[in-house]
Amino acid sequence: MTSVYLDNNATTRTDPAVVAAMLPYFTEQFGNASSMHAFGAEVGTALAKARKQLQALIGAEFDHEIVYTSGGTESDNAAILSALETQTGRDEIITSAVEHPAILTLVAHLEKSRGIKVHVIGVDARGHLDMEAYRKALGPKTAIVSIMWANNETGTIFPVEQLAELAHEAGALFHTDAVQAVGKIAINLAESEIDMLSLSGHKLHGPKGIGALYVRKGTRFRPIIRGGHQERGRRGGTENAPGIIGLGAAAELAMQHMEDENTRVAALRDRLEKGLLQRIGNSFVTGDPDNRLPNTANIAFEYIEGEAILLLMNRDGIAASSGSACTSGSLEPSHVLRAMNVPYTAAHGAIRFSFSRENGDADVDHVLDAMPPIIERLREMSPFWRERDVRTEAFNPTYA
Amino acid sequence: MTSVYLDNNATTRTDPAVVAAMLPYFTEQFGNASSMHAFGAEVGTALAKARKQLQALIGAEFDHEIVYTSGGTESDNAAILSALETQTGRDEIITSAVEHPAILTLVAHLEKSRGIKVHVIGVDARGHLDMEAYRKALGPKTAIVSIMWANNETGTIFPVEQLAELAHEAGALFHTDAVQAVGKIAINLAESEIDMLSLSGHKLHGPKGIGALYVRKGTRFRPIIRGGHQERGRRGGTENAPGIIGLGAAAELAMQHMEDENTRVAALRDRLEKGLLQRIGNSFVTGDPDNRLPNTANIAFEYIEGEAILLLMNRDGIAASSGSACTSGSLEPSHVLRAMNVPYTAAHGAIRFSFSRENGDADVDHVLDAMPPIIERLREMSPFWRERDVRTEAFNPTYA
Repeated sequence: MTSVYLDNNATTRTDPAVVAAMLPYFTEQFGNASSMHAFGAEVGTALAKARKQLQALIGAEFDHEIVYTSGGTESDNAAILSALETQTGRDEIITSAVEHPAILTLVAHLEKSRGIKVHVIGVDARGHLDMEAYRKALGPKTAIVSIMWANNETGTIFPVEQLAELAHEAGALFHTDAVQAVGKIAINLAESEIDMLSLSGHKLHGPKGIGALYVRKGTRFRPIIRGGHQERGRRGGTENAPGIIGLGAAAELAMQHMEDENTRVAALRDRLEKGLLQRIGNSFVTGDPDNRLPNTANIAFEYIEGEAILLLMNRDGIAASSGSACTSGSLEPSHVLRAMNVPYTAAHGAIRFSFSRENGDADVDHVLDAMPPIIERLREMSPFWRERDVRTEAFNPTYA
Repeated sequence: MTSVYLDNNATTRTDPAVVAAMLPYFTEQFGNASSMHAFGAEVGTALAKARKQLQALIGAEFDHEIVYTSGGTESDNAAILSALETQTGRDEIITSAVEHPAILTLVAHLEKSRGIKVHVIGVDARGHLDMEAYRKALGPKTAIVSIMWANNETGTIFPVEQLAELAHEAGALFHTDAVQAVGKIAINLAESEIDMLSLSGHKLHGPKGIGALYVRKGTRFRPIIRGGHQERGRRGGTENAPGIIGLGAAAELAMQHMEDENTRVAALRDRLEKGLLQRIGNSFVTGDPDNRLPNTANIAFEYIEGEAILLLMNRDGIAASSGSACTSGSLEPSHVLRAMNVPYTAAHGAIRFSFSRENGDADVDHVLDAMPPIIERLREMSPFWRERDVRTEAFNPTYA
């Protein structure tokens, strides 16, 4: 059966070249990197190379600004919790309504358990931050701002460099969850004012279970996990050498494919999107088509259920996503689309198609053939579809 | 050159069968386990199997008592921090002087930053806990006791089942860092009163970057890393599927080799130890030879430096360790041997030989041949060795 994987914002296939780079460090050079014998002798060199590879991808000035973690969620948690400890006299957090649960779950907990004031800044219909509300929320009590670089569901890109400058004017630290951006668009941290940045290996064809937190030189940092002297005392635990080396290899491959991602992959995405909107009525793109990740298309098919769409797509060999995989299991439409005021009748039927460099023209052709009958079939069974004229007027007065 | 790896308490070689079990989940079944399409369809089944495999190794009553983490250090941190949140009205910690830095660094930080009272219980010359001091420290303010199952440097085994019962009598939670014990000796959590237990994949021929925290059903738990709903809301972050599956495979292999570990491997260790003590004067075993892990021998060679010994051993193709790799870089002798009052002249020259099922008789023969000339050569250069009679009397009056 044809297999088309368009769920790369959930996770990517580990590149076989990445696996090949990791393999010797499981069974040959398996020594503890902190040990002083031959079984770990080459590990230190390989780890140093991997650090340089990742440094290059994010344009960090120094390689020791990278702290390896177990993934994006740990990085996000570490950044926020550190800021609350180091930013004496400041106990407020600013974030956006469309962040990943790794941020939103944590800050909700901090609000409840520690009385931390959390400003959750809204977004407009295209997913852009309410800049006026952001400026207003910033103040002498702001410990840290955490705003994502790009949204995982819509791909909408946030002006993080500008947001960081505004945060600094208020004396706040600026952190960005760049899990979806790193590897897809050019990032140059040295020339920004961003203090901390989270990234994750498995979002860029690296392995799961490894990520990093960029901590700008001079930014005070308190570890979330304490133990040995690894990562210059900023993160305890035996180095995950295969993971770190795999992430380095993935970073180098992402650099090599960056142009491809922003031309060929973006063109595939555009062709799919255009084709679907032409073939299927009562559908529209969510997010900002002019300012988003090159690989992401989020399309709302009105009056039907995303989970049902995915089920039929799966039968046709197509993998995609409705909302974030991390929150699946819930029947509510995604918090991102709700924050954008996408009406329920459309948000319920939103499908995220997320490409990678491994996709090709045949994938787009297959999806363009498969989707129209799927949507038609589901709409035939949908009471909302039959009553759509009434409902559109009643529930959807503002959204064109 | 002959290669002999006797540093298995630092880290083990990932078993090739473990790597083989992991491989399909990098490039074939790479889907996000939380997704609902074919690319992740088999991942859920594989994760469920891995959980059962680990459950069997530690004798847990329920498989959902396992919370996957990034390793032993995260597990240790999570256990202690959780207890401080859930044990209302209790703000004291009891631990031992010979714990891993994952515990000692954290509790020192908690003492300094939060005013938590920490009772660090001492050990005797064989590494056994001062039970009287332990009973005295337990009280209505004790939130949690954290005592390791087996010491990483000497292999000394602690009576954790009994310690857990005593902790419960005082209303305290009991956690054990069992990173060195799991996979080497039989563990049956269901029949104990242990509330939480830490383990690490790479200590039992599994991969680095994966570990687990056992949390007994009914034990209240607050996560250290918050995000999505993974691990029943107890640990956010996309599941490290290859790591979890690798740990499961490693657990099953450890079960199969448990008898070998406790007979053949223990015999290899004993032959090495006996042979070295016969061949090399002024040397002795640290820890308790009658109550320790089957794979560990820690031998102190008096009047010379461990780092120098390791260097010459490395030239002969032998990998071992002086103190814990996690703390290497320091010139102080290990905190474990200091806590046991091993005199400095001996503690400085302590070498840990830690075996695994991958070792054989040829390894022991090679080390028995190689060590005497190494020790002799270093002692010839040692001023302490030349003055040893005087020094022994002056500095070593109590230790026979």
